Amino acid sequence: MRILILGGDGYLGWPTAMRFSARGHEVSVVDNFSRRRWHHEQSTDSLTPIRPLAERIDAWHELSGNRITPFVGNIEDGEFLDRVVAETLPEAVVHYGEQPSAPYSMASRRHAVETQYTNVIGTLNLLFSLRDRCPSCHLVKLGTMGEYGTPNIDIEEGFIEIEHKGRKDVLPFPKVPGSLYHLSKVHDSHNIHFACRIWGLRATDLNQGVVYGIETDETALDERLVTRFDYDEVFGTALNRFCVQAVIGHPLTVYGKGGQTRGFLNIRDTLQCVELAVTNPAPQGEFRVFNQFTEQFTVAELAELVRETGEKLGHRVEVQSFPNPRIEMEEHYYNATNTKLLDLGLQPHHLGEELVQSMLRTIERYKDRVIDRAIAPQTQWKPGELEAAPTLRTTVH
Amino acid sequence: MRILILGGDGYLGWPTAMRFSARGHEVSVVDNFSRRRWHHEQSTDSLTPIRPLAERIDAWHELSGNRITPFVGNIEDGEFLDRVVAETLPEAVVHYGEQPSAPYSMASRRHAVETQYTNVIGTLNLLFSLRDRCPSCHLVKLGTMGEYGTPNIDIEEGFIEIEHKGRKDVLPFPKVPGSLYHLSKVHDSHNIHFACRIWGLRATDLNQGVVYGIETDETALDERLVTRFDYDEVFGTALNRFCVQAVIGHPLTVYGKGGQTRGFLNIRDTLQCVELAVTNPAPQGEFRVFNQFTEQFTVAELAELVRETGEKLGHRVEVQSFPNPRIEMEEHYYNATNTKLLDLGLQPHHLGEELVQSMLRTIERYKDRVIDRAIAPQTQWKPGELEAAPTLRTTVH
Repeated sequence: MRILILGGDGYLGWPTAMRFSARGHEVSVVDNFSRRRWHHEQSTDSLTPIRPLAERIDAWHELSGNRITPFVGNIEDGEFLDRVVAETLPEAVVHYGEQPSAPYSMASRRHAVETQYTNVIGTLNLLFSLRDRCPSCHLVKLGTMGEYGTPNIDIEEGFIEIEHKGRKDVLPFPKVPGSLYHLSKVHDSHNIHFACRIWGLRATDLNQGVVYGIETDETALDERLVTRFDYDEVFGTALNRFCVQAVIGHPLTVYGKGGQTRGFLNIRDTLQCVELAVTNPAPQGEFRVFNQFTEQFTVAELAELVRETGEKLGHRVEVQSFPNPRIEMEEHYYNATNTKLLDLGLQPHHLGEELVQSMLRTIERYKDRVIDRAIAPQTQWKPGELEAAPTLRTTVH
Repeated sequence: MRILILGGDGYLGWPTAMRFSARGHEVSVVDNFSRRRWHHEQSTDSLTPIRPLAERIDAWHELSGNRITPFVGNIEDGEFLDRVVAETLPEAVVHYGEQPSAPYSMASRRHAVETQYTNVIGTLNLLFSLRDRCPSCHLVKLGTMGEYGTPNIDIEEGFIEIEHKGRKDVLPFPKVPGSLYHLSKVHDSHNIHFACRIWGLRATDLNQGVVYGIETDETALDERLVTRFDYDEVFGTALNRFCVQAVIGHPLTVYGKGGQTRGFLNIRDTLQCVELAVTNPAPQGEFRVFNQFTEQFTVAELAELVRETGEKLGHRVEVQSFPNPRIEMEEHYYNATNTKLLDLGLQPHHLGEELVQSMLRTIERYKDRVIDRAIAPQTQWKPGELEAAPTLRTTVH
């Protein structure tokens, strides 16, 4: 199968590229190295020493005998993207090529505009190229569970049947997202739904939970193949950050009460889910939505798991409540449906001490690379409190 | 009251500016003359001979003694807009400053990107300026009834109570819009809702129906004060187009079966509604949504009304079904709530023969200015059918 991966240099994009390549698919990747640039701007970096894309691709070729074809450019540049699509004529596009950080999107007007521009216009360009170049291509788009927010009713997979004043319809599930980044994904979902309804494209929107983990079968083959691992306040996510904090002796940064409940999944399950979506494509004309997570946890539960596991490995781990930089409910109802991927055969890797132990051991290897300054939460959701965020303000322009 | 009007040179923006100025408010307008440029690009024009903004403002000053302050620039340029907001410190912003045409947004990738960029990023810039410069300012944003699409349940005003699996919540009404332009307004609504929830801004989203009419009290004062009147396939809307077609002997262009039902309102009622919203502001932190239309009609009903009225004035009027260039349901359930503006005191001008007669008479005066070539529907919603649209393809780059 010809598979094009947007954001193929990223945390999930690179392991996904190798996975499909290992399975014998013809894989091309697009990246503009935004994430590497954003780290430079913040003077932060991946915990793992990731190699340049060309070196990764050479190492993968050396080990697997398979070639991954790179295209370097911005998907906001419609003509560039259109040339890539015309040249590769993909049967599936896996689209990770977006600015993925909520704090980044909230840091300033410039960051917000960059986020919505990159994500919304990039995806819009892609829809036109698919329409004009390969309308039967299956778009597998990474969305986020954060699009839904935390409604007081059960979250369904993309659509909900509503009965109202004696009539019924099945309509898109209403979205109340919590950041300008999450909003950009809501906008994408609406645009993609439209392209399926009006142009007859087909797409699967993977509303993904928070991903944790460092290793996949392919990244573990050789150190040149490791994927990035972010732990800073901008690009790091809950469990990954806690594990790094446990290893370096930083208190685990629980925001507020820690009762925030979210869906989570192992990076290995991300690859499984994407593979299931690609190999079981949506029918032509359908906008299909899967909620892609395997378990729900509160942030406090994750912190406790990391504390217990860390102490068994001899780390002294403290859990500390930090003033919440976000505007969000710290205790709320949360129950999201996630049966569609299980029905396709997903075999979840559940979270437990064993996985956390293995993450902690990997992190110990790279411990000297940790940049302490990058850990404390600084980006405030509300104006006037930005005084607390000197790092972003002074280093990002 | 200090009122800033974005898109103050437009069909509704200019009459709105004069209305508030006539009421003694301190009015500033922002425009970048996009609409005038888009007409140049298509070799089309307003039916009415509109004057340059500076001349309009001078004429208004001569007649009323009041000054309207103009700012010329793009709201996509965040620094420009921020300077305007900082300088004018508005108590209310009335935001018409968007690309407002569904066919325009569907003409090509470039048009789609321009539409979503202009509308979404322009509004996002505005939200940041309000947050940082005048957080108590009331944003009155023009949305559209087209955001909802044509669901099989009654359309509520912005939010709907959903009961699901034994639990309840009030959530944003799900949106299934019919063009990339309408999508841009959906994106705006989500972004504005966020700014109210997270930053405590206050806003009224006026989900407006299709506006018809040429005259307001102020535009009728002097020919130099007329507002634009578009009848071309890109910027003209149903009733306005039918009236021009009736006068020049062109068959009324009903798309398909003509069973498409929409909400409509008189331009005089737009001014009333906007004034009601401004003088009864949303409470701080609230995102308030009003459905702004006075009556529902099918397109076929409007055509029949224009045919009957036109024939009484001696025109020979034929109603013709054209192949529908849009992808939409031509017969469907439609029932939208619109009580909130009535509760605030809106006195609707209902549509009838008298109003149509007066429109036809005004159009007769400008009949020689009609550009016939601009009338037939050409912009197709689906790819591959663009061969039928030589005008846009050859003149717009």
